[in-house]
Amino acid sequence: MNENTLSIFALGGMNEIGKNMYVVQYSDDIIVIDCGGKFPDETLLGIDLIIPDLTYLEENKDKIRALIVTHGHEDHIGGIPYFFKKLNVPVYATRFTLGLIELKLEEHRLLRDTELVTITPDSELQFGTIGVSFFRVSHSIPDCLGIVFHTPEGNVVHTGDFKFDLTPADNQKVDINKMARIGDKGVLALISESTNAERPGLTPSEQMVASHMNEAFMKATGKIFVSTFASNVSRVQQVVDAAKNTNRKLALLGRSMVNVVSVAMERGYLTIPEGMLMDAKEVEQLPPEKVAILCTGSQGEPNAALARLATGNYRDVNIYADDTIIFAASPIPGNEKDVSRVIDNLFKLGAHVIYGSGSSTGMHVSGHGYQEDLKLMLTFMKPKYFIPIHGEYRMLHHHRLLAESVGIEPGNTFIMKNGEVMDIQHGVARQTRTIPAGDTFVDGVGVGDIGSVVLRDRKQLSEDGMLITVITLSRSEQKIISGPDTITRGFVFAKESDALLREVNKLVKQAVNDLENEERRQWNILKQSIKKSVGQFLFSKTKRKPMIIPIIIEI
Amino acid sequence: MNENTLSIFALGGMNEIGKNMYVVQYSDDIIVIDCGGKFPDETLLGIDLIIPDLTYLEENKDKIRALIVTHGHEDHIGGIPYFFKKLNVPVYATRFTLGLIELKLEEHRLLRDTELVTITPDSELQFGTIGVSFFRVSHSIPDCLGIVFHTPEGNVVHTGDFKFDLTPADNQKVDINKMARIGDKGVLALISESTNAERPGLTPSEQMVASHMNEAFMKATGKIFVSTFASNVSRVQQVVDAAKNTNRKLALLGRSMVNVVSVAMERGYLTIPEGMLMDAKEVEQLPPEKVAILCTGSQGEPNAALARLATGNYRDVNIYADDTIIFAASPIPGNEKDVSRVIDNLFKLGAHVIYGSGSSTGMHVSGHGYQEDLKLMLTFMKPKYFIPIHGEYRMLHHHRLLAESVGIEPGNTFIMKNGEVMDIQHGVARQTRTIPAGDTFVDGVGVGDIGSVVLRDRKQLSEDGMLITVITLSRSEQKIISGPDTITRGFVFAKESDALLREVNKLVKQAVNDLENEERRQWNILKQSIKKSVGQFLFSKTKRKPMIIPIIIEI
Repeated sequence: MNENTLSIFALGGMNEIGKNMYVVQYSDDIIVIDCGGKFPDETLLGIDLIIPDLTYLEENKDKIRALIVTHGHEDHIGGIPYFFKKLNVPVYATRFTLGLIELKLEEHRLLRDTELVTITPDSELQFGTIGVSFFRVSHSIPDCLGIVFHTPEGNVVHTGDFKFDLTPADNQKVDINKMARIGDKGVLALISESTNAERPGLTPSEQMVASHMNEAFMKATGKIFVSTFASNVSRVQQVVDAAKNTNRKLALLGRSMVNVVSVAMERGYLTIPEGMLMDAKEVEQLPPEKVAILCTGSQGEPNAALARLATGNYRDVNIYADDTIIFAASPIPGNEKDVSRVIDNLFKLGAHVIYGSGSSTGMHVSGHGYQEDLKLMLTFMKPKYFIPIHGEYRMLHHHRLLAESVGIEPGNTFIMKNGEVMDIQHGVARQTRTIPAGDTFVDGVGVGDIGSVVLRDRKQLSEDGMLITVITLSRSEQKIISGPDTITRGFVFAKESDALLREVNKLVKQAVNDLENEERRQWNILKQSIKKSVGQFLFSKTKRKPMIIPIIIEI
Repeated sequence: MNENTLSIFALGGMNEIGKNMYVVQYSDDIIVIDCGGKFPDETLLGIDLIIPDLTYLEENKDKIRALIVTHGHEDHIGGIPYFFKKLNVPVYATRFTLGLIELKLEEHRLLRDTELVTITPDSELQFGTIGVSFFRVSHSIPDCLGIVFHTPEGNVVHTGDFKFDLTPADNQKVDINKMARIGDKGVLALISESTNAERPGLTPSEQMVASHMNEAFMKATGKIFVSTFASNVSRVQQVVDAAKNTNRKLALLGRSMVNVVSVAMERGYLTIPEGMLMDAKEVEQLPPEKVAILCTGSQGEPNAALARLATGNYRDVNIYADDTIIFAASPIPGNEKDVSRVIDNLFKLGAHVIYGSGSSTGMHVSGHGYQEDLKLMLTFMKPKYFIPIHGEYRMLHHHRLLAESVGIEPGNTFIMKNGEVMDIQHGVARQTRTIPAGDTFVDGVGVGDIGSVVLRDRKQLSEDGMLITVITLSRSEQKIISGPDTITRGFVFAKESDALLREVNKLVKQAVNDLENEERRQWNILKQSIKKSVGQFLFSKTKRKPMIIPIIIEI
């Protein structure tokens, strides 16, 4: 099937925001793009992280030539440590992206075993039958790449995450002339991100933030706290600049803020004046109008610096009535309630809080292109085939409409699911086969050992708790010699449950006695009978359905 | 304390959206305003509903003269059935509000036992020392009231939920002249809702929806589905009118849509032309351009009509590629993800979907006044004291700023917590005491039998599951005669756990053997020792902390 065929597919990133992983394959040469993680929603009880299903890659590991990483956001690099536990492939990424990958590998103690190769937008690579070149795009993290795959079937372009920011704060300009040249040479297929395909207009420039940030710093009379993603180095630089302009020293709170800022400084992506950085311990010794603080927690994460500051639980630093807190990031869908809780707590401390969704406060702009950005990319590349990626279904759908609006033939846009494969042969694309793809759950150190049964049990336990009843039967006569002993967890208060549990014990005894001796020896029948009568009784009394676990001991 | 004192406090609705319940008391006369429910967030595992703590009212039940209900929304009437299980007090409300209360009491089979009194904006009542009169306000449900309490200390005004809609779709005009007269007579304290205190401007009028609704109906070539809150009768009427204008018959899907529409029709709040309503079964027999459907599920609720339609799981009715679905309601914070899931599924069916937050699509306007509405109310009433209610802290805070901007003295706004009491004597307000107030959890038929221990257990069970290990000891020698038998639920796959559980059994045996006979008889020591060694072992192997339940049987 793969001989002389160009195949394109996603192992993550279709119909979802998160765990991006895309594959371009020609004959026996596989190139993997990104390996992201995704945070579980509240239905995935106890799950820490979701990563792509790596089955196809494991089965074809001898063919994988490279993992190329477009940029360093969690939804593009979060799965890399788990990837390396199973696969050993060289990683290609820009200097800043590699810095973040190294941080992550170090945490998992995998750093020594991996081959990391630094590339630039000018790099040109050859992997078997596939040549690879790059172009710079702007986004909300430094050093982002789009990728061109030069295959015998034609050129395939992957945009990475992008917006067209012609005045980026870090001066890493999106290379539109190179994009035009790539388009002029002919693009067989364009793979483009869809996050903001529902939003009309052109994304505002990152530079917009500077004037608002400076103004807020100028007005503030107390300490200033700014919370943003540490990886948004341009945003961090603008905070540094505003602090410098107003003669404030700067403290960094939160582990990822400290780590990422140090990577950015070491590698020359961030300039902080000598002597400006201070330790958290120094904060309370300076006059408040001399203090600026950069902290994690813009998404309301309960354990991050800002949430702890807001409840007075941060060692060394307190928020007082005249302080100003700036949210320089928009809540990601699903985080709104956590963010609101933190804002409420800050107002309770009497602080000034600058917050609001989207770019309404001027303290945040999106890193993902709006509709006009997406149309620009489609217009530069003029692809024959178009694959919208990186979005929930409605975003992919709107991206298809945008493609049609700039002249892509309606039948030539392929909205695919994770694991659905586009095969191109002799210039003709077909989508006929699928490979395994889905969510792999990470819980603690376990990867893939949690499935639907475990989650179903957790759900039942979480809603109504459980009841355990233990009886001991004599092996010879199958009579009860001890028990029933019944305990509950997560079901009802102990004091409320005494009478209830006495009834349960009666029912258990009765269930045992009601069975003939022969049946009693078949524990499954006995257990079913106990579950049924106790379950019905509890539901009639409480309208709850705890998990009922009969345990039978035979002596 | 209460003799000749006017007291005002909330049992719910402060620092939260939901479970509104306010109390005005003079000497021995208590009047209760509203009795709402609140839906639990995802941290309250298994809880069905939250209602106010009724302790104070139960302890003072002989003093309660009336429960007055401002309007029929869940966050104002949802707790009423639970109120009536403990307290028997006459209920005063307008005709439409009483209709919804009756529906609710009927469900709980409490209808016969309660005294329901119909009032109008012109009613005047006297409860001991307190006279009560009313004024009409506009909101997003018919027949809403503001209340004036005439007490020996002075007049207290409670706004209910309101906006100033001068062109309401139902012609129930907000009575601004009466409000002005009330203000002119002098208001000692104003209790006013704060939901939209963060939003600048004046709320748009409900009539804005009509033209957009008609336009969408005119353009649609297939079936039209509109999802909204059934209680928003004006919105429902506008859908009926648009269907009439385009010669479509109308089907109602979803239990609450059917129930509330029938209450609204019976009581004359909704006019549906003869022969327009049809059964769901008729839908597929008509040409699609002759069909309009009103359905529940605008918040993405997984079991409501729209979510089931979107996945093809609704008996009798299907959505096809050319159909149009209109979300005529904005997602309530916390529901965004559920709503997005439904929208995605609708797009997958190929349907046209009209959606968007706030009033961006023209298909929804808020029922709660924005900043200018709130300032109007404050200006009419010119109260001496101001108590912002019905909002999270940041909303109450912004409402206070609005009050100051129209001339309320800064020290005279009281931002209170649930249970904090404002006492007014000789015209002077003080906030010195508190009464019991908090969340009462409803889980199944249990009210108040779930506390923090049960919830903590549910949380642990939900995240990492549990492990039960049973050993039987001989009473005489305290030797193991059976077990350990170990099972898990919600922890790991069975197939992954065999080796793990063998190790656990070894540890349990060892824990028993390591103890001296004397200690072994103290089961607490034995259990702690098992929990500790098994817990440490499991964490080291899996980084998970399941609940560990050792069960010891002695024979």
